[in-house]
Amino acid sequence: MTYDKEMPKPPFQHPNADVRMRGFVERVSAEEALGWLDAELERHGLLSDEYVALVHAAGRVLAQDVTSPVNVPNFNRAMMDGYGIRAADIRGATAATPIALEVVGECFPGKPFASAILAGQAIRIMTGAPLPPGVDAVLPVENTIRQGTQVFAACELEHGKNYGNVGEDIRAGEVVLRAGRVLRPQDLGVLSSIGHGTVPIVRKPRVRVVVTGDELLPVGSVPAGSQIVDANGPMLTALVGRDGGVANHPGIVPDDRQAIRAAIEDDVDVILVSGGSSVGQEDYVPTLLAEHGQLAVHGIAMRPAGPLGMGRLGERFVFLLPGNPVACLWGYDLFASRAIRTLGGRSIDWPYRRTIARLTRDLKSPPDRLDYIRVKLTDEEVEPLGRSGASVLSSTTRCDGFVVVPTDSAGYHAGTEVEVFLYD
Amino acid sequence: MTYDKEMPKPPFQHPNADVRMRGFVERVSAEEALGWLDAELERHGLLSDEYVALVHAAGRVLAQDVTSPVNVPNFNRAMMDGYGIRAADIRGATAATPIALEVVGECFPGKPFASAILAGQAIRIMTGAPLPPGVDAVLPVENTIRQGTQVFAACELEHGKNYGNVGEDIRAGEVVLRAGRVLRPQDLGVLSSIGHGTVPIVRKPRVRVVVTGDELLPVGSVPAGSQIVDANGPMLTALVGRDGGVANHPGIVPDDRQAIRAAIEDDVDVILVSGGSSVGQEDYVPTLLAEHGQLAVHGIAMRPAGPLGMGRLGERFVFLLPGNPVACLWGYDLFASRAIRTLGGRSIDWPYRRTIARLTRDLKSPPDRLDYIRVKLTDEEVEPLGRSGASVLSSTTRCDGFVVVPTDSAGYHAGTEVEVFLYD
Repeated sequence: MTYDKEMPKPPFQHPNADVRMRGFVERVSAEEALGWLDAELERHGLLSDEYVALVHAAGRVLAQDVTSPVNVPNFNRAMMDGYGIRAADIRGATAATPIALEVVGECFPGKPFASAILAGQAIRIMTGAPLPPGVDAVLPVENTIRQGTQVFAACELEHGKNYGNVGEDIRAGEVVLRAGRVLRPQDLGVLSSIGHGTVPIVRKPRVRVVVTGDELLPVGSVPAGSQIVDANGPMLTALVGRDGGVANHPGIVPDDRQAIRAAIEDDVDVILVSGGSSVGQEDYVPTLLAEHGQLAVHGIAMRPAGPLGMGRLGERFVFLLPGNPVACLWGYDLFASRAIRTLGGRSIDWPYRRTIARLTRDLKSPPDRLDYIRVKLTDEEVEPLGRSGASVLSSTTRCDGFVVVPTDSAGYHAGTEVEVFLYD
Repeated sequence: MTYDKEMPKPPFQHPNADVRMRGFVERVSAEEALGWLDAELERHGLLSDEYVALVHAAGRVLAQDVTSPVNVPNFNRAMMDGYGIRAADIRGATAATPIALEVVGECFPGKPFASAILAGQAIRIMTGAPLPPGVDAVLPVENTIRQGTQVFAACELEHGKNYGNVGEDIRAGEVVLRAGRVLRPQDLGVLSSIGHGTVPIVRKPRVRVVVTGDELLPVGSVPAGSQIVDANGPMLTALVGRDGGVANHPGIVPDDRQAIRAAIEDDVDVILVSGGSSVGQEDYVPTLLAEHGQLAVHGIAMRPAGPLGMGRLGERFVFLLPGNPVACLWGYDLFASRAIRTLGGRSIDWPYRRTIARLTRDLKSPPDRLDYIRVKLTDEEVEPLGRSGASVLSSTTRCDGFVVVPTDSAGYHAGTEVEVFLYD
């Protein structure tokens, strides 16, 4: 008697002898698998730069430090609407004893006043207007009373009051934003103000979504008979977008060695294969990857997504995700999303909001397996969802988020505070 | 003597007599202004629906409840790789006393086995495959030993084990997602699995960005002389996108009544005007809005963005934002972003992450003004940024986030725990 001969041994043999016999000869821990991935990502480094129009750069990752070539503003400017004056001229002014100045002109943003202001003179001025020589403070309009060509100052003013100096916002030569910054809306404003119409951005990881399975119908089909509609394709496409990648999912790939081989050799940075990833009869992908590239990890001590594989094919990172949609989601989130974010210069951390709450009941997990637990959050308590398999995708839409039980944990008792990652 | 005649009175006269004389005749509180906005948004209701291809629906807002027309799966399916069996046949099986079954065929996803399984028979089966009649449980491959046409069961199995029933994921007639849902990646998977290729989605608010100012150069220009480059245009465009709207900013609009009038009559849902919004000489916009629509609010007891105005022009929501970029950002965030999110069916709340931390020093604020305070977060402490005006946009890129001091608060003492909204 031998173990089922229809089940080929995975080509990857992990040195760790602590094996658990299942369909897989052995399984590595999720932490070991992450260790392999992080080392490969470190070795690979960031993707290359591209220049992106400023208006399309929000939320993108800056590839280089940006130094300002100019002062912002490039001139001394008024910080209030009012009158440009010389502070010495209105010393001692009060509402009861206002001091009169002669209004000699006006000055708007972009429309400077041609000459200097002399003693006893004032200039009507708008916020943002360049200040003419002689002016050393701006008297706010609410502290003035106008009568003909004269303006009465109803208070005195410090020298420099409401006076914006050259370079007040940004100085020429200053580094305004550092490489790695995920650009905020206001960052685009700053970049525009120093003259940038384009910005150096880390290229988006290109991701090919390879959905395999003869039982699958394309998106938009009506499920019928023993055929089901591709759920993983649209889900993975959206996940890749969320993580800053650009996904290509041109259609379902038949369970055929040549078709799958062509798909995984697409000219991209990351290959996501959904289905055909295990050790079953029609699971061509692991073998293909082992033959033409490197199948570094295959079979992980985790649930769901235990049959997950990872490897390299040329420069590509390849993720073999289970076809079961919950396992596909979790496998993507734990490994592939990390790779896509890292290659694109983003945080290694999940984009999920987190909260801490108490478990309503015991959460058991084998002490040698990482578990992904879908949960409901109610009244600041965490309720694990009832048993729902890796094939019940609606459980991930009904739940509020998930809890991770690490490999070396046997779970948590009711009442324990656990970290919840929120799907929202 | 009269108040400066160059300053037209704003047409809006708030009934509240508690006025503070500045450039504005009176200012309403930010809370009153929000009250007006929320009432108008309530009266207006959501934007209309549109049908969006599933692959473009991630992060969009579902406009209608979605009910499944089908069961998912539409057939009984295997939950594991192994053998479809009759549980009664292997009662009492153990590793030491395995029970032999005759393997009569195989069954893959999308490739059903044509006939029923009889007593003593088994069928080789892959996860997701339709289960033929007769099978009432799936024996995992790791609990089997294969020898020729026979398979030995090394354990017994409960009836129904690893057996996925019709409708296990989704039942026909079930509401799978409710209107108002911001669609998660996995929601797209579920929608695809029930046959949706398109989904009813709340239309994106169309937003016209009207940047005025003769001193402004278009994005991509080098600032020179008394000209500055448009910072608010790209910033507002990015903010609108963040809040789920679609912005159009075709270029700088000259400080000219006719040009501005044409711009604010654009066929959109929301008009954002940057600059020319105050009570100065070239501030045409408030007058235009009062003449042709409704200028409901003009002048708000807040800093920055005190000169902000709001109104309606036909069905459009119009926001008059200050030209100073920090004031523009804050005015947008407090009022316009709320409108755009609400019209598009999103949460009224800011998308900013929040945290609670202690102030390193006193934060003073007049007791009748709402203040926006840029802060640094260091070692879980909140450090308000030093004095930096509404024109220093780089302060919003250097800070980690902001604190809001409400109108009726005189500020907080050092050591007080305050809520920080994070720019990240």
